[in-house]
Parts: sequence; C-alpha cells; structure tokens
Amino acid sequence: MDDAVFGMHDVFGMHDVFEMHDVFEMHRHGKISVTPTVDVSDAASLAMAYTPGVARVCTAIADNPELAAAYTWAANAVAVVTDGTAVLGLGDIGPKAAMPVMEGKSLLFKRFANVDAVPICLATTDTEQIIATVAAIAPSFGGINLEDISAPRCFEIEDRLRDLLDIPVFHDDQHGTAIVALAALRGAARVAGKPFPALRAVVAGAGASGVAVTNMLLAAGIGDIAVSDSKGLIYRGRDGLNPVKADLAARTNKAGLQGSTESALSGADVFIGLSSSTVAEEAIASMAPGAIVFALSNPDPEVHPEVAGRHALVVATGRSDFPNQINNSLAFPGIFRGALDVRASAITESMKHAAADALAALVGSDADPGYVIPSQFDVRVAPAVAEAVSLAARAAGVARL
Amino acid sequence: MDDAVFGMHDVFGMHDVFEMHDVFEMHRHGKISVTPTVDVSDAASLAMAYTPGVARVCTAIADNPELAAAYTWAANAVAVVTDGTAVLGLGDIGPKAAMPVMEGKSLLFKRFANVDAVPICLATTDTEQIIATVAAIAPSFGGINLEDISAPRCFEIEDRLRDLLDIPVFHDDQHGTAIVALAALRGAARVAGKPFPALRAVVAGAGASGVAVTNMLLAAGIGDIAVSDSKGLIYRGRDGLNPVKADLAARTNKAGLQGSTESALSGADVFIGLSSSTVAEEAIASMAPGAIVFALSNPDPEVHPEVAGRHALVVATGRSDFPNQINNSLAFPGIFRGALDVRASAITESMKHAAADALAALVGSDADPGYVIPSQFDVRVAPAVAEAVSLAARAAGVARL
Repeated sequence: MDDAVFGMHDVFGMHDVFEMHDVFEMHRHGKISVTPTVDVSDAASLAMAYTPGVARVCTAIADNPELAAAYTWAANAVAVVTDGTAVLGLGDIGPKAAMPVMEGKSLLFKRFANVDAVPICLATTDTEQIIATVAAIAPSFGGINLEDISAPRCFEIEDRLRDLLDIPVFHDDQHGTAIVALAALRGAARVAGKPFPALRAVVAGAGASGVAVTNMLLAAGIGDIAVSDSKGLIYRGRDGLNPVKADLAARTNKAGLQGSTESALSGADVFIGLSSSTVAEEAIASMAPGAIVFALSNPDPEVHPEVAGRHALVVATGRSDFPNQINNSLAFPGIFRGALDVRASAITESMKHAAADALAALVGSDADPGYVIPSQFDVRVAPAVAEAVSLAARAAGVARL
Repeated sequence: MDDAVFGMHDVFGMHDVFEMHDVFEMHRHGKISVTPTVDVSDAASLAMAYTPGVARVCTAIADNPELAAAYTWAANAVAVVTDGTAVLGLGDIGPKAAMPVMEGKSLLFKRFANVDAVPICLATTDTEQIIATVAAIAPSFGGINLEDISAPRCFEIEDRLRDLLDIPVFHDDQHGTAIVALAALRGAARVAGKPFPALRAVVAGAGASGVAVTNMLLAAGIGDIAVSDSKGLIYRGRDGLNPVKADLAARTNKAGLQGSTESALSGADVFIGLSSSTVAEEAIASMAPGAIVFALSNPDPEVHPEVAGRHALVVATGRSDFPNQINNSLAFPGIFRGALDVRASAITESMKHAAADALAALVGSDADPGYVIPSQFDVRVAPAVAEAVSLAARAAGVARL
C-alpha cells in the first residue's frame, strides 16, 4: 500500500480528507473485539462464571426459558447478517470483502446504542439457505439486522424470516435508509415551504433502498413518486417487470412517465438517488424552484453536492464529509435499542414511522438548507429514536416488557 | 431467586463455596460484550472507519481476499457453536439454556488467549442443518469450536465440516478433554511410577469425550482401556453397538471384560469418568495400588474426590474447587491461539499431541499427587500450548503464515 491520497474510485474527483495509509491502519485486525464483562481472576470467580456455577444458571433457564433474557447476553445481541451481494455501492463483492462494513455497523451499534452486534458474513447467496441459516442461529440473538443483500432476494428473505422468528428482523438497507430519508425530507420540505402532498419526487433505484424509501414516502402522504431502474422509469405495463417492480408501477408514477431518470426531473421537487448511477448538472437545473436533492449512493453520490447546490435549495448525501448526511446510522442503533429495551417481537411499520418522526422532531423548526437531519454525533439521536420505538412497540402490542 | 447456598443438584452433598444469588448476579445480562477497538468520536474518524473510507478496504479485499486476514477481525474470531444437546453433564437442555456455558467459553477464550469468540446457539439438532449452518457462517471466522453436541452426531458433524472448511474445526468436548486428560495422565503416571504401556484404564462414558480420550490415550501408547456406556462395558460382539462403539470395541478391552464399569475397576490402574454416572467407594478401593482417578463429570464428579482420595494415589476432577482440575480451558484457548497465529487450515492429531505434551511439560518433574496438571491461572499455559501448536502446524504443513 502506498500513501497516496484517496480518490481513484471517485468519479467526480472528490478528494477524501484522509490518506489511504491511515484508513488501512485503522482497519488493521478489524474494528471490534469480544470482551468479558465479568472478572475471572481466580478459582473462586471462575467456579461461579464457569463450571460448576454456570450449570445452575443453565438449569434455571432450561426450567424457565424466559430467564435467558435476564441471564445471557442474547437479549442485547444483534446479528448483522450479509451475503455480500450489495455492499455499499460496490455491488457483489462477497462475504469476506463485506466484513469491514459489517464490523463498522457493529462498532456503531455499540458506540451509539450499547447494542452488542456480531457480524455474520455468509458463504451462500441462496435465498433458502440464507433463511435457514439465520433461523438456525436466531436463538443466540435478540434481533437480526439484515445488511447489503441484493434485491429482489432481500424482500423474500426478510418477509420469511419475520414470519419464522419471534425477534425483530430488519433489513437496514431498506428500512434504515427509508426512515432517515423520510426524516430528512420532512426537514427539507419545511425549509422549502412545501407540504408533503404537494411534492413530486423522482427516486433513482428500484433495489432494496429504492423500494423501501418509495413505500415509506407514499405511506407518509407524498404527492407522487416516479421510480427508475437501470432501464429507465418504471411505469404500468413496462415489459419484463419483476413482481416487486410491477407492484411499484401500480402505486407510483401517476403521470405514466417513460424514459430516463433525468427526463423525469424536469419540474420535480425532490430527487432521491439510491442507484450508483450519475445525474447530469442540467437535469438538476431543470427541477422546480426550491428543489431538494438527496444524492445517497455510497461512496460516490449521483451528483457532486457542490454541483447540485448551484441549483437546488437543499442537498444531502450519504457522506460524513458534507452537510446533511443521510446515513442509516442515525436510525439502526436507536431502533434496535428501542426494540431490545422492550423485547419487541418485531419492528412494525408504526415503529419505523415513529423513528422517522423522532429524528425529524430533533431538527424541528431549526431546519435550514444545511440542517435537515441531525448529526450522527448529536447525543440526543439514539435515545430519542429508542424511546419513540419502544413506545410504538408497546402501542402495537409487540413489546414483551 | 432466594439466597440459599447451592447444593440441590449435588448428589454428594458437596457444597459450593458461593451463594446462588451471587452466581446469578454474575451472569446477569451475560458475561461478554462486543466493543469497538477504534475510536469514532467525530466525522473525520467516522469517514475512515465507515463510509466512505471503509469502501476502500472492502475493494482491496475483493481484489485480494488474502487481505481479509489483515484488515478484518475474522482471522482472530472463533465461533463457539452448540445445539444444546449435551451441555456439561446436564444433557439436552436446548440452545437458550446452553448460552451461559458458551458465553463462559468466549470469556475464557479472551481472558486466556486474546481470541474473539462468539457464542452461536443453534435452533436445530439436525446433522445436515448444523453442517450447512456452520459452513454458511464460516467466512466470518478464523476457526470453529464445536461444543456440547451429543454423540454420535458430533463425530459426523466435525468430520464433515473439517472436510468442507479451510479453517480449524475442533469439537472441544472431544479433543480439549482428551488433550488435558492425556497431559494429566502423564503427570499422574509419573507420580505413580508407572510407564504408559503398563497402565490398564477404565473409561466410563462412550460419548464425545469418552471416545476422544480413549483414542488419544491409545495413540499415546497406553496398555489397555476398557470403555463403558450406560449398558455396561463395551466388548467385541456386544449386541446393538453403533458404528462408533463397534470401532471402539475392536480397539479396546483386550480381555473382553463384560458387565459393569465398577467390576472392571478391580485391579485397574486408571479410572476416567466422563459419564455423569456414579462409582461406589468399594469399586475405587478395588483398584490397583497407586490408583489414578479422574472423576471428570461436571458439575458433579462420578465419585467425591475426598472419598476417592482414601484409596487412590492421584485424584482429579473437572472442578475448580478441588486440586488437579482437568478442565478444557487449559487447552482450547492456547490451541486456537496457536492455530490462528499461523492461520492454520486445520487442527491435526500432531497439533493435539503437541498441546498435551506442552501442558505435561509445564508440570514435569514437579508432579506430585496434588499437582498433575497446571493451574488454569498459570500464565505459562496458553502461551506454551499456543507455541507448541503453531510449531506443530508448521511441521504438519497446515500453516499459512
């Protein structure tokens, strides 16, 4: 490894503020560790923590499985599960190359919400095998965070696991992204002075996050959304739509627009990029006055934020080195914290909307073009999300505490 | 939970030196945690540890998978996998009730050998599903420690996974127990002044540990072993032997003894209990002069060590509250440390024998009836075992570093 400044993957010539050498050194030997929380420094403590003392705890749990929540770590542990098929914007890079991201999520789970998260990178991309594997390891955990699994398999995997398991199953690329995007759009709409029903949005990308963002914005009452995939805009009757996209087509694109993503931006209020594609400056310039641009592809946004800022009122990205970072880490730590705190059996739609509302409320009337979503280092974030999610879980009847 | 002193499971009226309340408090919320090893306290460090910086590390590993060992935690991580069917001497108590033991192993992995171990308790007891699940999660780990899986499934599960995976797969109940028992028997034989080929042993238990201890002692040159199961001694031609026991019968019990475990002890030099059964004082009294008794069932040994001590020269148990604790924790941390240090692809027979020899060498000529095996808190243990295992891995050609 040489010490060159990063940038070789960067289609816009954006230069990261760190050096390659420093990044690789930070990741050396990984970013997490399993550490004891009890001291076993002598035979007496070992006899309590391990045999023979541990046998008494095991027997008590065998007699009453509910005690597992109190006397094991499982109730605070979350598996971060991937098959490595849709990692960041990098695509299908496999389980070993996905591990640095999963470790990063585990790190953030702990840092922001004191959740013990374990990265599990799978050697299979088969839907049935993934479901069977996650179901098999589930007794070890209080929740399952699915991560970076490509569409459309991710939808079936999540749906089936939600049916099979009595702990929360949450595909973060879908719902984490959707929750934070909805929260940010509430802030941005307030800045633009446009009510949600008046907004016409274009979502580039019909993968996991594109579908989830679209569904969540529709549920929140947005005016209309046109969604595009690599073949262009999705409309009723387009040839070869898979069931997920056919379902999307039936509920979006009221005007029946056809053609490119960029063509649909003309006069649109909102662009949300979740596609790893690029959008030209002229297309951004063609949007309605007071335009809102969320260029969320990672690591490289669909349009450079400075370029977008020449034409749009509000610009957000997924990156931490620009204002308005729309990053899942604003949501997933607090969501699981809130779910685990009440031993929720699932994460419902109402819990997701409660999380988005809690995030939006932290910005509230302080919203301005450079502040439509809280900072990841705002210490209010995870507790506010967790509390809202716990309350919503109780209201939904899925809380066990 | 009241505060009564433990003892209700204790068939000998042995009183543990701790109180129930203290044990349960020690296990409350579990005994391990996942903690970050890097600091992400601001946007700059987050941009390196997570997106966009992490994408550069992922891309590098995708281009060269060998880099995963350097830039993820996987090379130092071990899955401690159980189906909860043979937990301590408690039997089939299920995955949730097994978790306190698996957490205890994880704790000891870290405490003694700086290995990051993750407890994985499975919702299935099906051989094929266990194999498929472990194979699926394997890219996340540098080694697999199988634990408390009942015989005879444990043999096939381990054999098949060893064939499938290019990382060490080690069923600790078999090999950890066998390694420590062999090391202790070397010390005890030295104390008794009896060479290995002159020893006649009785092993009570033909489960995972009974089979593995027998095989390892035979490989080490012991004179003869008679093995018993719940139906009594195993001999050639006994009705209804499963393949594993038929194989044992062909290689043990030269005299063709039939009947009870206790009957075979008459004149025997060594008793090794791995059965959760009990042995009467008279049977111990019938052993040869200078008898060696390893009563290893946990939490309750086959014979009270004070009772055995009236007749035997050397008495060992699996408990930390008596002398000569024969506990797997003397072996597994150092074995995996040594294997991971050289990125071994397997744990060979020669590596196991090297571990036993290293343990025995720490006692050496200091052996006496109360000291046939080192203490778990002897700081020399894990490094000595690890070094011996690393060297043996290189000699066996399974080291990748």
